[in-house]
Amino acid sequence: MKLTDHQPGFVPVAPSSGRFRPLGSDDVHITGGFWAERQRINARNTLPHINHWLEREGWLPNFDLATEGSLPAGRRGREFSDSEIYKYLEALAWEIGRSDDQELEALFRSIVARVAAAQEPDGYLNTYTGRPGQPARWSDLEWGHELYCFGHLFQAAVARVRTRPEADEGLLAVATRAADLVCEAFGADGLQSVCGHPVVETGLAELARVVGEPRYLEQARLFVERRGQGTLKPIEWGQQYFQDDVPIRTATVSRGHAVRANYLAAGAVDVAVDTGDDELMAALETQWRNTVARRTYITGGQGSHHQDEAFGEDWVLPPDRAYSETCAGVASVMFSWRLALARGDARYSDLVERTLFNVVATSPSKTGTAFYYANTLHQRTPGAPAADDAVSPRAESSLRAPWFEVSCCPPNVARTLASLDAFVATADEDGLQLHQYAAGTIRTQVAGQVVAFDVDTDYPRSGSIRVTAPVAIDEPITLSLRIPQWAVDAELRVHSAGEVVTSEVVQPGWAVVRRAFLAGDRVELDLPIEPRVVHPDGRIDAVRGCVAVERGPEVFCLESVDLVGVGDVANVRLDPAAPIVTKDGVPIVRVLVVRPDDADWPYAARPGEQPAADAVEVPLVPYHDWAERGPSTMRVWLPLAT
Amino acid sequence: MKLTDHQPGFVPVAPSSGRFRPLGSDDVHITGGFWAERQRINARNTLPHINHWLEREGWLPNFDLATEGSLPAGRRGREFSDSEIYKYLEALAWEIGRSDDQELEALFRSIVARVAAAQEPDGYLNTYTGRPGQPARWSDLEWGHELYCFGHLFQAAVARVRTRPEADEGLLAVATRAADLVCEAFGADGLQSVCGHPVVETGLAELARVVGEPRYLEQARLFVERRGQGTLKPIEWGQQYFQDDVPIRTATVSRGHAVRANYLAAGAVDVAVDTGDDELMAALETQWRNTVARRTYITGGQGSHHQDEAFGEDWVLPPDRAYSETCAGVASVMFSWRLALARGDARYSDLVERTLFNVVATSPSKTGTAFYYANTLHQRTPGAPAADDAVSPRAESSLRAPWFEVSCCPPNVARTLASLDAFVATADEDGLQLHQYAAGTIRTQVAGQVVAFDVDTDYPRSGSIRVTAPVAIDEPITLSLRIPQWAVDAELRVHSAGEVVTSEVVQPGWAVVRRAFLAGDRVELDLPIEPRVVHPDGRIDAVRGCVAVERGPEVFCLESVDLVGVGDVANVRLDPAAPIVTKDGVPIVRVLVVRPDDADWPYAARPGEQPAADAVEVPLVPYHDWAERGPSTMRVWLPLAT
Repeated sequence: MKLTDHQPGFVPVAPSSGRFRPLGSDDVHITGGFWAERQRINARNTLPHINHWLEREGWLPNFDLATEGSLPAGRRGREFSDSEIYKYLEALAWEIGRSDDQELEALFRSIVARVAAAQEPDGYLNTYTGRPGQPARWSDLEWGHELYCFGHLFQAAVARVRTRPEADEGLLAVATRAADLVCEAFGADGLQSVCGHPVVETGLAELARVVGEPRYLEQARLFVERRGQGTLKPIEWGQQYFQDDVPIRTATVSRGHAVRANYLAAGAVDVAVDTGDDELMAALETQWRNTVARRTYITGGQGSHHQDEAFGEDWVLPPDRAYSETCAGVASVMFSWRLALARGDARYSDLVERTLFNVVATSPSKTGTAFYYANTLHQRTPGAPAADDAVSPRAESSLRAPWFEVSCCPPNVARTLASLDAFVATADEDGLQLHQYAAGTIRTQVAGQVVAFDVDTDYPRSGSIRVTAPVAIDEPITLSLRIPQWAVDAELRVHSAGEVVTSEVVQPGWAVVRRAFLAGDRVELDLPIEPRVVHPDGRIDAVRGCVAVERGPEVFCLESVDLVGVGDVANVRLDPAAPIVTKDGVPIVRVLVVRPDDADWPYAARPGEQPAADAVEVPLVPYHDWAERGPSTMRVWLPLAT
Repeated sequence: MKLTDHQPGFVPVAPSSGRFRPLGSDDVHITGGFWAERQRINARNTLPHINHWLEREGWLPNFDLATEGSLPAGRRGREFSDSEIYKYLEALAWEIGRSDDQELEALFRSIVARVAAAQEPDGYLNTYTGRPGQPARWSDLEWGHELYCFGHLFQAAVARVRTRPEADEGLLAVATRAADLVCEAFGADGLQSVCGHPVVETGLAELARVVGEPRYLEQARLFVERRGQGTLKPIEWGQQYFQDDVPIRTATVSRGHAVRANYLAAGAVDVAVDTGDDELMAALETQWRNTVARRTYITGGQGSHHQDEAFGEDWVLPPDRAYSETCAGVASVMFSWRLALARGDARYSDLVERTLFNVVATSPSKTGTAFYYANTLHQRTPGAPAADDAVSPRAESSLRAPWFEVSCCPPNVARTLASLDAFVATADEDGLQLHQYAAGTIRTQVAGQVVAFDVDTDYPRSGSIRVTAPVAIDEPITLSLRIPQWAVDAELRVHSAGEVVTSEVVQPGWAVVRRAFLAGDRVELDLPIEPRVVHPDGRIDAVRGCVAVERGPEVFCLESVDLVGVGDVANVRLDPAAPIVTKDGVPIVRVLVVRPDDADWPYAARPGEQPAADAVEVPLVPYHDWAERGPSTMRVWLPLAT
């Protein structure tokens, strides 16, 4: 299969047009700080951890059984377990792209060989379906996940081709054979239906971009357009579960299963961009706006229902029953980033940042070998650690667990971290945009001119960001820096030849510097990084009378391990009169300890708690670090003393 | 099968011992007011409605198919649909007992004949299991519901025998044949397991009481003791779902599926009473107390999880995601009533009253032909009425629906209302106790003396209750009247021969009058019935800063149909300074209308709502009447203006 002429670099998303052009992990290198550490742990610990469990649980050996012809007897794992291998391959591909690690390269090739061997002559590939004794091909589109698995296969192939276009291990051929089969089976003359779990849409669109095959984009378009017509069979949770309740073109907000909703929306942006469909794009912007304004947790987390892993109605955002699935965070980043590239508004990358720091970074443990599937904002009981060698139910761990019966979060986090450099910066015909702040280097071309910047920062620990041009940029370019929504009155200075040449106060959105750069010229951005008290909209009933504390992009929480001798997170109330102080970057709050009246019946003529005499100072911890010190209770939303 | 010598009257529960002896619907007749109207609608509308749907959906015809030998091909309904026929038969039996309606009698006999014909020679009876092409008997104890169905069969037979001991239609014989088989299959030498859904325990215990068969009680005891040992297979929601996590003897609070938890607890009380097991009884009292103090909605509703229809952790009582399943309310009444009989504490009947008025009475529509499966305490969107002729998903209707895919609530409500007279009064060796207040008559014997009282009241519209002895009671007896927990400073007067002879202020618990009665002597109880503002325990985070309004035993709510021209329940705040006034029994509250700041992001440096200038007076409605005026938004917990 021939590749298109102009390959866009090591990027997961490469739209045919749009406001910004993404820069990949070949152009951008995160070299230090918060994300570099997580990328290092991801490569060193998480990828081997995933490999271990995929082998141990039989999900990877399922492909060998398929090749030997011994399925279905020995098959293990859920109907969608093939997809975890593909997500893992995608993560490996990005990591190989970044590090050129030859052991990973060999591993990647060996896994692709096992997958490829199981592909049937007509391109079909699924270890769960299609053999005697298994469900027939496409016989259960609601729950079978066949096209979902293919979607992740396509994304893995895209990652491989973009990072190693000359590689010969054959993953692209596997993907395109499968994609050809999908187009044949589900094309205009095929089955007029869709998969219960979207993701094939964005997979097909990216594959089309890689190989220039318009049939793949057309098939993605058909899948996007068919959905919302009641195409799938009704289920108890309603057709909104699969986004099959309302055509995406007329929907106004995200509904149903939060991962599905975001994957579908991401694929629909791809289709809208590559077909020039402005009406569809406008609908997706509206859905994003309303979902962010009314159905998103302060962490960026999405989905409040445990029952159907779904969005609740507007303002239904209970912290203690937050589902906020890790993979919904990954999927939300995919949707927001596509809108950022297409439309350029800084708030899309605001949500990417919030979700990366407070959902994606929260899931893995510091060691990268245990994960949250769901991300509650309020833990009422400390719970017990999951056993190191046990599979946990998908969402019920109160502490991070090594593996789940449905284990999409480990490889989904891994592929996101391995490709994270590609979310840092973009370019357009006029200049370069910094979307995320991390110490590192950026090298690209703008209007035929080589443009390089080195970023020096300890963000988010510090709000100081220094962007230096190591070599001169002779023709003026526009350097745009995203000022996060919370960074009111940030300060921006330009140093040239050792002098401050401009200094201004800038506000949320894009701060713009247009100039030529001498070697060593530096743009300094100071984001206000003091802890902030944040109030919820009065319609979010579940957190009435509470506030949260943020610092920079990080949401903080209170853990019971910091309340030893004081009480529990259940019986402290924030003193609204006391300022929040910071000690070594840690916000310290003053709380009052209340004593509840234990009564036979919890509803009474008078409020039933007695404030204690003394106030106590307690530290908060970044939400992404919670439960790293052992079992603990925790809350993000702190009730105000009244 | 021979009946025991002393039959206890028309009662659903007849413990062998305990603090109080129940009076059945042969001794007690509710003749007017709130519950009489609901019993009338139940008999006239609900029973025919259920019959129609059981026939239409094929759940009753399944028995005919079984008899013809044409199962499983034509079978319809879920695996537990047989149980709905048994609950319906139980409801019919109580109603025949009350009314002696000959058409119902003929209907009852015809249904029993269809059921009996399907019973297999060894006593097995289930339309879903046991035939070629069906799951084998007892092969899926986690989900098969075979013993659950039998439990309801036994209760139906008990109802029939207690109300018509001479009847010859044969339901008792069907039940005892099945019970004998259960004892053989699951006895000390049989399968050492239990059913995923309890109820067979209480069914066996009552059947033992009816026929004096100790094997049945022993089998109930075995089922109670086996549970909590991890006997059933693990499931994703944890073994607490089936109460198989902790032995009931050591558990301290209700956990897991709320209907299962309460049915099991009810059966365990039966076992504890009839085996004299004080340790087990004490454990059940502790479980009840902690569950009521920490895991029960203000309505008496139990169970906050949609996912597993389960209790949440302590204090997790979100109003907008309340599940509060109707059948959990029915089951909670069964548990509480058994403790009331065994232990005599008035607070058990307090919870019975609260649950009857605010859960059981809320489910059916005024016409008795549509039901809530779940009972939310906060409806955010008005929703659309369910179609009259459509089956609804079990719990997702925002308005009452005629029938559900899982349709336990209609027959469960029907059997409760048809036997409601039996929850009004009890007796002991010394006197008579009034647990619930309804206009009606009571006739029984106390210590060999005929005792009769007529109750005249418009409760709960009024708090005035007049209890008159129509004929003299020559020997002194003790008349005890339950003073509900909310009725502080109630007034109690005794009129004798036209004069007030005693007058006192009484407090929650049992108010006691000990005396002989002349014909016409009257006890007058005045319960304070002004609306009350009620605050939640500070640990119920989901309703922080809110209050509810109650009047007598009824919880009230605010509906958007009463806010036309003012706003929605989302944007009104209760004025804490304004007293609640009552107009024709309706509480009127003063609210302030707030205007939210619609923002791109709902978390901000300042609280985001502006109070409007004007306050508005709006009426509240009893929660059990909500959504009777068409689609509406609704909330029980009203945020206080700050």
